[in-house]
Amino acid sequence: MPVSLVKESDVDVLVIGAGPAGLMCANGLAKAGVNVRIIDKRPDKVAAGQADGIQPRTIEVLQSYGLAQRLLREACQMHMAAFYNPSDDGGIVRTSRAPDVTAPTARYPFAVTLHQGAIESIFLDSMKSAGLVVDRPIAPTSLELSKDEKVLKDPTAHAVRVVLKRLDAAEGQVDTEIVHAKFVVGADGAHSWVRRSLDIAMEGAQTDFVWGVVDMIPETNFPDIRVRCAIHSNNGSCMIIPREGDMVRLYIQLSDADALDPSTGRVDRNKMGPEKLIDVARKSFYPYTIETPHSFDWWTIYQIGQRVAAKFSVSERVFIAGDACHTHSPKAGQGMNASMNDTHNLIWKITQVLRGSADISLLKTYEFERRKYAQDLIDFDREYSALYSTKPQTEQNKDGVSHEKFLQIFQTFGAFTSGISIHYAESAIVDAKHQSVAKNLIIGKRILPQILVRAADARPYELQDLLPADMRFKILIFAGDTTQVAQRIKVEKLAQEMGRPESFLKKYTPGEEWNKVFDILAISSGKKEHVNYTELPKLFRSHWSKVFVDDVDITGTQGGQAYEYFGIEPVGAVVIVRPDGYVGFVSSFECVRDIDGYFASFMKSL
Amino acid sequence: MPVSLVKESDVDVLVIGAGPAGLMCANGLAKAGVNVRIIDKRPDKVAAGQADGIQPRTIEVLQSYGLAQRLLREACQMHMAAFYNPSDDGGIVRTSRAPDVTAPTARYPFAVTLHQGAIESIFLDSMKSAGLVVDRPIAPTSLELSKDEKVLKDPTAHAVRVVLKRLDAAEGQVDTEIVHAKFVVGADGAHSWVRRSLDIAMEGAQTDFVWGVVDMIPETNFPDIRVRCAIHSNNGSCMIIPREGDMVRLYIQLSDADALDPSTGRVDRNKMGPEKLIDVARKSFYPYTIETPHSFDWWTIYQIGQRVAAKFSVSERVFIAGDACHTHSPKAGQGMNASMNDTHNLIWKITQVLRGSADISLLKTYEFERRKYAQDLIDFDREYSALYSTKPQTEQNKDGVSHEKFLQIFQTFGAFTSGISIHYAESAIVDAKHQSVAKNLIIGKRILPQILVRAADARPYELQDLLPADMRFKILIFAGDTTQVAQRIKVEKLAQEMGRPESFLKKYTPGEEWNKVFDILAISSGKKEHVNYTELPKLFRSHWSKVFVDDVDITGTQGGQAYEYFGIEPVGAVVIVRPDGYVGFVSSFECVRDIDGYFASFMKSL
Repeated sequence: MPVSLVKESDVDVLVIGAGPAGLMCANGLAKAGVNVRIIDKRPDKVAAGQADGIQPRTIEVLQSYGLAQRLLREACQMHMAAFYNPSDDGGIVRTSRAPDVTAPTARYPFAVTLHQGAIESIFLDSMKSAGLVVDRPIAPTSLELSKDEKVLKDPTAHAVRVVLKRLDAAEGQVDTEIVHAKFVVGADGAHSWVRRSLDIAMEGAQTDFVWGVVDMIPETNFPDIRVRCAIHSNNGSCMIIPREGDMVRLYIQLSDADALDPSTGRVDRNKMGPEKLIDVARKSFYPYTIETPHSFDWWTIYQIGQRVAAKFSVSERVFIAGDACHTHSPKAGQGMNASMNDTHNLIWKITQVLRGSADISLLKTYEFERRKYAQDLIDFDREYSALYSTKPQTEQNKDGVSHEKFLQIFQTFGAFTSGISIHYAESAIVDAKHQSVAKNLIIGKRILPQILVRAADARPYELQDLLPADMRFKILIFAGDTTQVAQRIKVEKLAQEMGRPESFLKKYTPGEEWNKVFDILAISSGKKEHVNYTELPKLFRSHWSKVFVDDVDITGTQGGQAYEYFGIEPVGAVVIVRPDGYVGFVSSFECVRDIDGYFASFMKSL
Repeated sequence: MPVSLVKESDVDVLVIGAGPAGLMCANGLAKAGVNVRIIDKRPDKVAAGQADGIQPRTIEVLQSYGLAQRLLREACQMHMAAFYNPSDDGGIVRTSRAPDVTAPTARYPFAVTLHQGAIESIFLDSMKSAGLVVDRPIAPTSLELSKDEKVLKDPTAHAVRVVLKRLDAAEGQVDTEIVHAKFVVGADGAHSWVRRSLDIAMEGAQTDFVWGVVDMIPETNFPDIRVRCAIHSNNGSCMIIPREGDMVRLYIQLSDADALDPSTGRVDRNKMGPEKLIDVARKSFYPYTIETPHSFDWWTIYQIGQRVAAKFSVSERVFIAGDACHTHSPKAGQGMNASMNDTHNLIWKITQVLRGSADISLLKTYEFERRKYAQDLIDFDREYSALYSTKPQTEQNKDGVSHEKFLQIFQTFGAFTSGISIHYAESAIVDAKHQSVAKNLIIGKRILPQILVRAADARPYELQDLLPADMRFKILIFAGDTTQVAQRIKVEKLAQEMGRPESFLKKYTPGEEWNKVFDILAISSGKKEHVNYTELPKLFRSHWSKVFVDDVDITGTQGGQAYEYFGIEPVGAVVIVRPDGYVGFVSSFECVRDIDGYFASFMKSL
């Protein structure tokens, strides 16, 4: 009689699902040195199609992990949008071309497209350099949380028991494994097994709008085939999304007769193929022509649904992220972005808790911050996708949406679709007490991009690049004009305050190694010709590269606007940026001890 | 009795020497698909020290081979320069900080430093991806050109016979090889074996100035240790060059007593070590302090000499490049730049001759263009290094060089030291007949950088990035405002002219494949909101990505100045850019047939 051998193992974090949300999570944790494992039930990554849009804020986030350069090299950039409406002669005519991204503070003033498989490859290669690969094909079969409250509250306990099944195990091989994890992240898609096993409900509804999607290399005389283009014709609506290489994605509005099974009211994939989708699209392109290509890269049909999970976490031990907790239309290209930003929000929190720097309660802010965002997203999506599915205003159809209205909504939503406007509400980690000290650095929003000039060598740097996602809190010392003796005395006093043994710098860090948890940058408002980095207190120049000036660069073309843009007065300020790039706290020099209070609300002294 | 087995082989191009000049050459040829071999007598690449400065024009050139991104990631950027002169209290004081690069058209407004070994690695990795590695350690022992004039004139003949000796051959192994090459490039350094074997004389002289060099990580309170800094003190001169990482290079002026052997008058390396060099430097740093570091990365002592080879090639079959044909002081950081630009000039010429597109006489332009540049370089270097070696003007020394004079010369020479001002004289490939058509695109100078916006998708591009070193001539069609019907008719007529069977596009290219030898880009002066790329003649849009507009980009922050900056009128122009990025010819629409004449002077019809 064979003995059943079941493998057992421990891990700090188990990530279930290797799509964009799961890969962002596993890569970030691995780079932070966390003991993490990632599994997926699919034998391979996505080959074509699926999600493809990366919004400006997501590019900033990827850049903070050192991944944007490759993305920008491989992806298609969408700088412009075009709008077509019915013409008098029964065809369509261009109403306008406009910027695709309208968020004025976006560091990258464009969105990009790249197929999901290529985006996953960027993460896979980065993870590999940290020694992590996706374990696949593996599916979870059971998940149990400890029922012991004491265990649940101890972040060092392996409080979650997950049973995994290896799907490609040969007969006779061990195919079952019990994993004891401290934390589990369920990033396993719209039909999330983790979500269902935790009995978390999805709240929301399905709409009646049905759309088809095709990815292909087009042959056409349409002049706006390489920009994001919304075509509203009297023969249907169509949206063009240019893709990497010569590829283009078309979103094509379908009538119920085209797409639905009359008996069930659900999408019938047998009624439609990619050739038929092109036939439908062709009508809205008229008088421009578009050929049916010899082959298609990918195609699908979908019905728009807008749903958000009732909970994003259970006992701060199991989290769900990405499509597992929100589904919406792909029209505004938000899906993959919301997913990656979910786990971007979670990575540093799990890391700080595992390192013992932060209290486990910090993890409550994940649901608090991301669920509200997901709700805003589906509210937005409801209005936005209805807009795309509504007929254009014409002589015959006066109730239709006018081009002016469409363009206005398109641009109003710009801040939202770009991902730039995310504003986390007040919590332990978002404390707006001294907002007035840096009026335009909104606490709870991401740090604004801005060019600074390094004091020691006058090299210009984008501030965001000085704040990588390295899990450290960034302490920005806006030091005022350090070429003035009186100001230098104030700055010296600030350094003394921050150097006290009771200061946050010492309290939450092992030994003298405050720079394992914090990074300090100083920004003088003096001129690059006169500021000497050697004149700042040693605490504010742990390395010669840590001192900057808010001045134009040596070519006179960029920089010199940070104090004004951020709303910081010449007396100076201290700005705390969270490890995920969001402003957490600001303080005047005088109130520097309030920073101790900010960190005391979620950090654990060692 | 052992039989002597000598290996024999054929190759199109044999490159001797794997320093910057040789590697640039071999990499460029390999990427162009040329059958090339590169050998070096050293068993390994340079580990530390040596040349380290890359000037703005060289960055542009490396970018045209796709190599600048890595360089900029690894290197130190020098944006600022600082100048110190004697102070009243016997020490030094900063007179000013100023831009390090003063050439207003530089695309990269800074120079970079990176040690020669790291630069060589960039080439080695790029070559490897084209299947080429350096064969080492191998030295040439004899070189013979065919004496048959007919053979010499036939570019398909292997007219050069080189005997090579493998230096690490085990006893009994074959250590000798006879290589029959079509062309040989001697990039084997200041003591070039190739140059000596061809009996080419070096013309010029040695100066009396002796300098020491140390590479190290400094411990100092000097505030300008991270910028290019010229210190003129009454206790000697010193120049600081910041390096990658935390390293710094010091150039230290030495007295004869410090450095020379009195019996020979030559540098005596036994008299000096790196610690002694720091002791000398310390005197010029006073009142700032600089510690003697625990270790040095590299050091040397040199005497300035300025020499140029009498010939750069023999029978257009054997070429010398880099230090093999010019030596000068390292003070202005020109050495490695001149070397790489030598072979950059040669690569496309050899490639076109080997492909049968160009006549072998094209190769005469290598010496014509590069030897004149080398002479300008040593003339400049003589004045420039004397300046650095001269005492500062003080009360006691009224004949010394004043700071104003120094700064003025530093900035006047900016265009030269940046490499931007290179201006090749008229020849078969530099024909300024119609210069007035594009007044500011100086024929014989490199194409000016400028931002254009792609018509199909409004993505901004740097023009230089549209002109990679892919060995093709770039035909820039400045098409005027193509939103105007009258202008479109003129552009259509131009396309018809260029499409004639007698046109250069057809005459020098196999079959219909003109784009193997040429690339055509069209630049409309219309607005991005109105230009349709589909409205240009097919010849000018071989792909949707080939049409651009001279308009501001969608953010309104860059672009839209090309016509004006280049001095091109709205009627349009055609600009021919050589494969190395230098303007070769310009023409009006009316004189388009003169382009046929330009190419006829050095191309060979197939």
